[in-house]
Amino acid sequence: MKYVNLKVDSVRNYCNEIFLKMGFDAGESDIITDVLLTADLYGIESHGVQRLIRYYKAYREGSIDVKAKAEKVFETDISAVLDAPYSMGQLAAKHGMELAIEKANVHGAGFVTVRNSNHFGIAGYYTKMAAKQDLLGICMTNTEAIAIPTYGKKAMLGTNPVALCMPADPVDFWYDVATTIVTRGKLEVYEKNGKPLPGGWAADENGLECDDAKRVIANIINKAGGGIYPLGGQSELTGSHKGYGLGLIVELFTSVFAGGTTSPHVKKSGNGDTSFCFIALDYGLFGDKVLIRKRFSELLDELRNSPKAEGCERIYIHGEKEAESHSEKMQNGIPVGPRTFGELKQIGEELGVDFEQHFTLDDG
Amino acid sequence: MKYVNLKVDSVRNYCNEIFLKMGFDAGESDIITDVLLTADLYGIESHGVQRLIRYYKAYREGSIDVKAKAEKVFETDISAVLDAPYSMGQLAAKHGMELAIEKANVHGAGFVTVRNSNHFGIAGYYTKMAAKQDLLGICMTNTEAIAIPTYGKKAMLGTNPVALCMPADPVDFWYDVATTIVTRGKLEVYEKNGKPLPGGWAADENGLECDDAKRVIANIINKAGGGIYPLGGQSELTGSHKGYGLGLIVELFTSVFAGGTTSPHVKKSGNGDTSFCFIALDYGLFGDKVLIRKRFSELLDELRNSPKAEGCERIYIHGEKEAESHSEKMQNGIPVGPRTFGELKQIGEELGVDFEQHFTLDDG
Repeated sequence: MKYVNLKVDSVRNYCNEIFLKMGFDAGESDIITDVLLTADLYGIESHGVQRLIRYYKAYREGSIDVKAKAEKVFETDISAVLDAPYSMGQLAAKHGMELAIEKANVHGAGFVTVRNSNHFGIAGYYTKMAAKQDLLGICMTNTEAIAIPTYGKKAMLGTNPVALCMPADPVDFWYDVATTIVTRGKLEVYEKNGKPLPGGWAADENGLECDDAKRVIANIINKAGGGIYPLGGQSELTGSHKGYGLGLIVELFTSVFAGGTTSPHVKKSGNGDTSFCFIALDYGLFGDKVLIRKRFSELLDELRNSPKAEGCERIYIHGEKEAESHSEKMQNGIPVGPRTFGELKQIGEELGVDFEQHFTLDDG
Repeated sequence: MKYVNLKVDSVRNYCNEIFLKMGFDAGESDIITDVLLTADLYGIESHGVQRLIRYYKAYREGSIDVKAKAEKVFETDISAVLDAPYSMGQLAAKHGMELAIEKANVHGAGFVTVRNSNHFGIAGYYTKMAAKQDLLGICMTNTEAIAIPTYGKKAMLGTNPVALCMPADPVDFWYDVATTIVTRGKLEVYEKNGKPLPGGWAADENGLECDDAKRVIANIINKAGGGIYPLGGQSELTGSHKGYGLGLIVELFTSVFAGGTTSPHVKKSGNGDTSFCFIALDYGLFGDKVLIRKRFSELLDELRNSPKAEGCERIYIHGEKEAESHSEKMQNGIPVGPRTFGELKQIGEELGVDFEQHFTLDDG
């Protein structure tokens, strides 16, 4: 059995029912489902429905509390800190960005941090919320430690992604990246295919560069040392310290500014110990928004149209690949691998949601 | 003649007189000199007094107007846009960060952009101003285009550095990096030594990876194509798109939000067409500052003390090397190479400042 394309509406309805069965209300189920589906539609499979099994397990183990509410523990006109213990990350995150947007709409800027939550899906989802209101959105999260600092051999920082979305035409500039050179998901692909890792990706338990994906992943799971290099790789020669510093900045804006658990102490990113940061900025802080947006869109156009390297056909603006994937998948459905297919079915069985009723033979 | 160590006070007094002779007033001369010396003291020679000749030439050519003042063209409670045509970058920059700090001290945050200025020295200088007032400081600037976008072959973005300083104990976290994999200065060192460039640093005029420093630099000067890769190198496999996107974000916060000249159109970074962005944040936006600072300092300590990779002795926190360099150089003086030594002397001769009077034989 290979990948099958499932109808977007079918996946949406099925996931919604799953979350309802877990005990989330209709509005909450909608939000969580939308975050997952958006990842799939944008082509970010690692954060789409294939991750449902992880959320389901966290729910079963009790590290996700479906009744958890985010509590405001500190607030100013332009900032707030939310405590959301064992909350579903997507719900606490949406709440956090909504509050940041509210503040930005009144005061020009909003900074909201959240602590004690769980994995929230794609960081970019929340930045899009700001862009839809013609604001600039920024989002960061820490995670379980997986990145070794430059010259270190123990994972101390998370993949610590940062996302930024700025309204532009014809498509928003939409940046969403881990501050590590790659994510663990990428290592898993190399492990599955039995291929050696590209240079500068990962270190073994002694802190030496290592191309054995299996060994690196086992070490990460067993917390035996080693991990993934920061963006910039192993050496200062290729800017390792720059990526390491970015990861640290994300840590500052998330766990430190939220009063949450820092990455070295996050047990796993679905254990009620993850911190987020949401920033919404009204770019009218810098003058006429129509002009600024036009100026930015023109710059992006110049980049798109600038000469291509030999053998390359296209220069991408961040967010273009995702927008194209979205159009294509809305039409053709969401590709789901055999393992995910099985997991979706299994979760339904355990929770009493009829898989066959949602997915016709056409879907698979 | 090799490097000689010049006394810090002698260099300070000499530079001050040079700037006075150019027509800056005493306060202004102090500021510009302090920015230059701080770079040298922190061990960032490329941005220290060795760059005096470039400022001097820009002054002679008329692209620096010593009488230029920054004019506020837009303002809100937490933001402002300054127009500072042909201004000395250090003066416009200091003014910009002062305004951002003022706003942060009243409203919690200050965002100030500056357009039409000139090269301002090290970005980190201005972030330190915020940290000295127990605020978080961020600073960005665009520059002449030198970085090629992922899959491109024409330099479209500047080195576009970003600096961030967050108060911490025993030393501030002080991050100041180009969003390119390296700066042009690094290429020049390899050219001088006739060594091939490390992999993933630079591209030739066809957009192919190139280890010939001489050729890359000549192409950059003649705007013949090619340039330096973004942080992350040439390929998406090593995160090229991440560095390229960071450069674009810096462009957004500088030229786009300032209404200035975008990097592809900056003639050279000393021609009245450079834009800056200054952000000051009162981290009391997130609660008790003493606790936050303590929490952050503890995280930095954990990183410092985490296990080292085989063959490595130390894990650095950003800003430590610079702080140690500062202590050492305050005692031993500022090392100046023969070329810079000659240039300093020559500038003095042309402006009528007595070199010998400032530097005793002991100095050289």
